[in-house]
Amino acid sequence: MGLPLALVFAHAGAKVIGVDIDEEKVRLINKGINVLPEEPGVDELLSRVLNNGNFEATINGMEALKHSDLTVVLVPTLVDENKVPRLEGVFSWARIFAETLKEKEDGIFIVESTVPPGTCEKIIKLIEKESGLRVGKDFGVAHAPERTMSGRVIKDITKSYPKIVGASDPETLEVVKGIYETINKRGVITVSSLTAAEAVKVFEGIYRDVNIALANELAIYAEKLGIDVWEVINAANSQPYCHIHRPGAGVGGHCIPVYPYFILNSEHRFGVRFDLIRKARERNETMPYHVVNLVIKGLNKVRKPVNGSSILIVGLAYRPGVREHRFSPSIKIIRSLKELGGEIYVYDPAYNCEELERMGYRCWRGENVDAVVIVTEYYEILELLKRREDGLAYAQVVVDARGITTVKELRKAGYEIIKLGSSV
Amino acid sequence: MGLPLALVFAHAGAKVIGVDIDEEKVRLINKGINVLPEEPGVDELLSRVLNNGNFEATINGMEALKHSDLTVVLVPTLVDENKVPRLEGVFSWARIFAETLKEKEDGIFIVESTVPPGTCEKIIKLIEKESGLRVGKDFGVAHAPERTMSGRVIKDITKSYPKIVGASDPETLEVVKGIYETINKRGVITVSSLTAAEAVKVFEGIYRDVNIALANELAIYAEKLGIDVWEVINAANSQPYCHIHRPGAGVGGHCIPVYPYFILNSEHRFGVRFDLIRKARERNETMPYHVVNLVIKGLNKVRKPVNGSSILIVGLAYRPGVREHRFSPSIKIIRSLKELGGEIYVYDPAYNCEELERMGYRCWRGENVDAVVIVTEYYEILELLKRREDGLAYAQVVVDARGITTVKELRKAGYEIIKLGSSV
Repeated sequence: MGLPLALVFAHAGAKVIGVDIDEEKVRLINKGINVLPEEPGVDELLSRVLNNGNFEATINGMEALKHSDLTVVLVPTLVDENKVPRLEGVFSWARIFAETLKEKEDGIFIVESTVPPGTCEKIIKLIEKESGLRVGKDFGVAHAPERTMSGRVIKDITKSYPKIVGASDPETLEVVKGIYETINKRGVITVSSLTAAEAVKVFEGIYRDVNIALANELAIYAEKLGIDVWEVINAANSQPYCHIHRPGAGVGGHCIPVYPYFILNSEHRFGVRFDLIRKARERNETMPYHVVNLVIKGLNKVRKPVNGSSILIVGLAYRPGVREHRFSPSIKIIRSLKELGGEIYVYDPAYNCEELERMGYRCWRGENVDAVVIVTEYYEILELLKRREDGLAYAQVVVDARGITTVKELRKAGYEIIKLGSSV
Repeated sequence: MGLPLALVFAHAGAKVIGVDIDEEKVRLINKGINVLPEEPGVDELLSRVLNNGNFEATINGMEALKHSDLTVVLVPTLVDENKVPRLEGVFSWARIFAETLKEKEDGIFIVESTVPPGTCEKIIKLIEKESGLRVGKDFGVAHAPERTMSGRVIKDITKSYPKIVGASDPETLEVVKGIYETINKRGVITVSSLTAAEAVKVFEGIYRDVNIALANELAIYAEKLGIDVWEVINAANSQPYCHIHRPGAGVGGHCIPVYPYFILNSEHRFGVRFDLIRKARERNETMPYHVVNLVIKGLNKVRKPVNGSSILIVGLAYRPGVREHRFSPSIKIIRSLKELGGEIYVYDPAYNCEELERMGYRCWRGENVDAVVIVTEYYEILELLKRREDGLAYAQVVVDARGITTVKELRKAGYEIIKLGSSV
């Protein structure tokens, strides 16, 4: 997400050119229309920096780079269906940078995208080869990994945590450190190498993935044992050395489900196995199927099969209010339940019905459903469930994969309730 | 460790009888001699409660239980060499409780020992069977898991964290809650069942085990990648959602290396696998052998084999100042290096030389050594290393498995230095 960062830099006084490949988006931004309405602060910053002339958007990357001292790349980095990292975006910008460098003979290339550790060293080699110039002398490369969360990006850029910076050479490090210090109130932590900076961001993601997986494994244990994992986790975390995460239907978004593969992918090269990280990933990848089993179990209680039942999935995206459903557990849950013959409706207020339908989902407009599956913590569904409004009048089963319901309350309202991580 | 808890209860006004099977220990305690000098506060409490007559120690458990309304069991629970939980201690006290219950026809049995979830339910069955009495009517069972760390037990009992309590019935829960509220400033968190209370403590231990294993896996990755894991972890943890632990030579003590097996042991019974928890345990169990490889590598750098080299192991216990070396990584490291023909010396100020020698270790009295292996963070060794005193005059290699050394400094002092998790 480059726009918020571009706006923050422009607001701090820099002349910023924002580059995107989406022509329509660029047109809207230049007209002052906020394409990220879900990000607080973007609206205000956008109109300010368009007014003071510090910011413009363009689709012409080559031209933009020609006129820039600094290039910041914040394109998505993903893995393909075989979980191999796809870094073409970053490398193609490095190639354009190298091209423009021949004329400018000076410049710094800053990677904000999260990349597998070692990538920036490859980028240096590529730029040197394509431009014929030397790193540390003619140009610099820095890694300053994005540390933001959807829905609070401006805040995270400017004041939530220190910025991490690693660079190709001491001079570049000084310059890039200075630049981020102007926009981040929490300052900058410099690390000793580009690779170390890359590892920082990947480690952060892996910590979360492993700990969500641990919570999920404990949830499955709790179901078998006959206790409520949510109660136990809350009690355990009353001790300050304990930070057990919340279980759920899996891990979504373009970060946490991706970054572990940036390390796992090096297993063959290094001749070692990262079993813990791999098993954590497997646990999170398979959680949606565990939730599907809970749905089957729940419907079975009221003597219904999935085949022919109508089921409401609450939450397409992995977090409420966030319009980012990449790798979202709901996708696997919906696909599996459809394969079993379920009629699936989706409720997610972050999208309108037209958008959901364009993505191939049936938008819930209050139709009758047999079961409700809570994948994302949209608390408003609890109210609808309790009031038994619309199509919830005849619903018999609630599967809660986020631990937001109170079993007693829903039982009183007449539902069979199945809670992930609980068999109380 | 029942003594600190006994003293705290006695100090709060209860009449407490402390039971131990060690006759000599009981004799010393009754004479006011502190058998836990490493625990702050025990000294003072012991003399106070002996003076005011609220406390005495005995080896006669049966007699003690006959005269008690409440029985608190805090015997060690371990796993055998096949990692099967050994709970004989707890169950034999439950049997004695049942025996005395026949006369008293009233009483509460509180388990403070950490036990596999489900154990207290088995204890209830045993007591009912042996006594012919009924839980919830004639007697109660509670689980109030010990939440203490060696070296700060009194503080942890009285004010570090809330106490967790689960019980067999509401009345027992109320009574036990009230009792712990009198000694714990942070209050009591009650949970809905005995099994939930058991799970709380086991989950806390597993969280730590998994996260230490993750740090260790990241350390091995860092070595391969050519970065310093300590630097990266510090930078990553500057973000408040990230709590990556510190790598090391493994996990020691009688808690964290044990509790994961309390869950893993149920895999067959439940028909599921807890792969993440298992892989974490494996990672920590094998870390000592990774350190052995670092020692081999370090000596190899100065053209020496382990065979015939003399090696100083810094730290027998897993934590400095703690006299608890059960499952300590040093034990595996020492055994392996001995098998390779190394001459091993041990430095651990928590033990005197006589104690170390009684355990079969060669105590370091300043003899010449070729290599120094830092397993436990005894910072005083850094001073000795820098001053090159005594037998360190000719040492050539330092292996730092706790990340406490500065590579530059030790290189300047003339050592080859190998740091776990670092190839910088």
